[in-house]
Amino acid sequence: MAARILVLNTGSSSIKYELIDVGSRERAARGLVERVGEEEGRLTHHAGDGRGRPYTCERAFPGHAEALAAVLEAFEKAGPELDPVAVGHRVVHGGTRFREAVLVDDGVIAAIEELAPLAPLHNPVNLAGVRVARDAFPGVPQVAVFDTAFHRTLPPEAYTYAVPGEWGVRRFGFHGTSCAYVSRRAAELLGRAPEETNLIVLHLGNGASATAIEGGRSVDTSMGLTPLEGLVMGTRSGDVDPALLGYLKRARGLDVEEAERALSRKGGLLALAGSGDMREVRRRAAGGDARARLALEVYTRRIRKYVGAYCALLGRVDAVVFTGGVGEHDAATRAGALAGMDRFGLALDAERNAADASGERFVSADGSATAVLVVPTDEEWEIARQALALL
Amino acid sequence: MAARILVLNTGSSSIKYELIDVGSRERAARGLVERVGEEEGRLTHHAGDGRGRPYTCERAFPGHAEALAAVLEAFEKAGPELDPVAVGHRVVHGGTRFREAVLVDDGVIAAIEELAPLAPLHNPVNLAGVRVARDAFPGVPQVAVFDTAFHRTLPPEAYTYAVPGEWGVRRFGFHGTSCAYVSRRAAELLGRAPEETNLIVLHLGNGASATAIEGGRSVDTSMGLTPLEGLVMGTRSGDVDPALLGYLKRARGLDVEEAERALSRKGGLLALAGSGDMREVRRRAAGGDARARLALEVYTRRIRKYVGAYCALLGRVDAVVFTGGVGEHDAATRAGALAGMDRFGLALDAERNAADASGERFVSADGSATAVLVVPTDEEWEIARQALALL
Ligand SMILES: Nc1ncnc2c1ncn2[C@@H]1O[C@H](COP(=O)(O)OP(=O)(O)O)[C@@H](O)[C@H]1O
Ligand SMILES: Nc1ncnc2c1ncn2[C@@H]1O[C@H](COP(=O)(O)OP(=O)(O)O)[C@@H](O)[C@H]1O
Repeated sequence: MAARILVLNTGSSSIKYELIDVGSRERAARGLVERVGEEEGRLTHHAGDGRGRPYTCERAFPGHAEALAAVLEAFEKAGPELDPVAVGHRVVHGGTRFREAVLVDDGVIAAIEELAPLAPLHNPVNLAGVRVARDAFPGVPQVAVFDTAFHRTLPPEAYTYAVPGEWGVRRFGFHGTSCAYVSRRAAELLGRAPEETNLIVLHLGNGASATAIEGGRSVDTSMGLTPLEGLVMGTRSGDVDPALLGYLKRARGLDVEEAERALSRKGGLLALAGSGDMREVRRRAAGGDARARLALEVYTRRIRKYVGAYCALLGRVDAVVFTGGVGEHDAATRAGALAGMDRFGLALDAERNAADASGERFVSADGSATAVLVVPTDEEWEIARQALALL
Repeated sequence: MAARILVLNTGSSSIKYELIDVGSRERAARGLVERVGEEEGRLTHHAGDGRGRPYTCERAFPGHAEALAAVLEAFEKAGPELDPVAVGHRVVHGGTRFREAVLVDDGVIAAIEELAPLAPLHNPVNLAGVRVARDAFPGVPQVAVFDTAFHRTLPPEAYTYAVPGEWGVRRFGFHGTSCAYVSRRAAELLGRAPEETNLIVLHLGNGASATAIEGGRSVDTSMGLTPLEGLVMGTRSGDVDPALLGYLKRARGLDVEEAERALSRKGGLLALAGSGDMREVRRRAAGGDARARLALEVYTRRIRKYVGAYCALLGRVDAVVFTGGVGEHDAATRAGALAGMDRFGLALDAERNAADASGERFVSADGSATAVLVVPTDEEWEIARQALALL
């Protein structure tokens, strides 16, 4: 039987998993545990190609340990056999310590823990996944793959904030696993060596980021010290005035932690349109909702500004690459973000862009100096690849 | 005798003033009171064309009232006669209430006071200037000219942050008085009607901002709710991750007010290079100081990104206009910010740019689709003009 890698993406109240055959890249199984820690949890497990009826299980999962136990149970009851050669974990923040994926040992766990203040919503729960998987698969190598690692190549002028040095802060950047995958695929589609390819990658999902890639290396990116900076996201504000939190404290007595939580969870499309889900925002806008329309304008304008900024940094841009749920499926976002940019050699083909297509594709006009690509991301496969490379 | 307007720019520890002949635009006098509120204050007063020896006065000025009294004394002793038809005041923040310059009355004073939480470092001291001038010139019209007013034309998609609506915040933009002056002059130099002129104005002084102007109207600008957002400045950070202040609180126990003060007064070039003065930073960089070199790279890269972003917003750009102490005098900043942007139709002429010139001038290459201009700003004249228009 072929070697398989189990990929775990542990969120605060969920575990997403895929069992990936590293030879064929096929999924042997995939599933999701939702509402971990709540009263009514739910596990949905698809064996094989995912076309059959899923195995489900509804009960309370008090913690990630119980949730992972339920995943093992699902494999036992519904197959396939769960015998991974490694477990790959998504870890959001690698700080300056982790410049690439690593085999997990106690020292690595301690180091990821130390990074918690930088990613309080993510690193602790990512680690919870690592811990329960170590117990569940004794002797199987665990690999941590960091969202920040792809951005290790940022030059100092890109990662340096103009703030007191003793604060010890810098831009890290996130969505790196997605960028690594998507930029490699884009170079292949363009028929260019990655080292000779300049790209702007727009990862537009619930989180959203823009990354400037020069010769295959990340040279600037919109997310910063944390994943809050940059583009407008589903529930995150992206860029705001740095004095906002001080103002809210002064003028409204709003505590900084509370304000930051709101910027993370009640900002973005949710704040502007009442929903953080792009499909719902589009529906409301189509129904004449003025707030939703403004939200879309704010959202696409921010993307356009980053595209312009990164064009100015890169000079030559071989392709703008859209990925993530919105980037892959929302033709109107792509059109809005790039409208009128033909004078920068960046022209969409309206028909290709609007086509009800999926999968990798060119959506630029034939004469466009800069290609525009849609490349569905595959972070799980990228995690499996990076894990495999460490075995 | 010709009508003259007294223009006052009151800072926390200073008063700058000019007495301007509105017919000829000539300065009948100008001066500066420094270190107001400190133990040893100093007044320097130039009568006439400013070529003679200045009148000076060194003593403590406990408050702005004493400082203004010393200014009146200087006019009495050194001339010219001080008989303004109006006093024009620079006021930093006009909020949404003041969309243009206004004649000051008690209601206006109260409204400016209410805006203090938005500009705690500026509005209260600007008002102090208004109050003492009202007492000193009873019956003379006082006019408040707002730094925000030029940006009243920002469209909602530019002024809306993706944050909870109940916070009542938005982008305002500053340096508007400078933008108004400089953009009008730029249109004249280009021989275009302002309504048909698209510009990117880079005001690079101690504060620094970029503004996108479409058909003479501000459509986007880098400063936001407060003058802290955007470009790297002398002592201000400009853009940072919105989660920075929360992180500093969590990880270092740093209070939000303290952190904001540091972002305002100990950020920017000062944080990166140990000096907030561009001439000093250049000196250090020329002497081989690696921190100063990095500071310059961070500084120019940020400008370049905003130029790219605003090119993407505007489509056609008739000119990029540099102003402010750095913009007017620092050829290396202009060159660094625009290097390699010929593919966007934006090319400097190296020789013109480096020429030891002053005054209004073209520094672009002859073939450049977008002109590059240096236009020394004249905020005092603009304040006088706007005050005059209200009489
Ligand atoms: N067909 C579609 N049209 C527009 N938006 C879509 C479409 N499908 C998914 N999206 C949007 O993609 C976003 C989720 O992106 P996704 O990449 O799946 O999320 P995550 O960042 O959590 O991985 C949601 O805003 C969703 O509305
Ligand atoms: N010849 C010069 N070369 C480089 N920088 C200069 C030069 N002259 C002034 N500057 C810089 O301009 C900045 C002050 O700009 P200015 O517009 O005068 O200030 P403000 O914003 O307070 O009005 C300082 O950083 C100063 O070093």
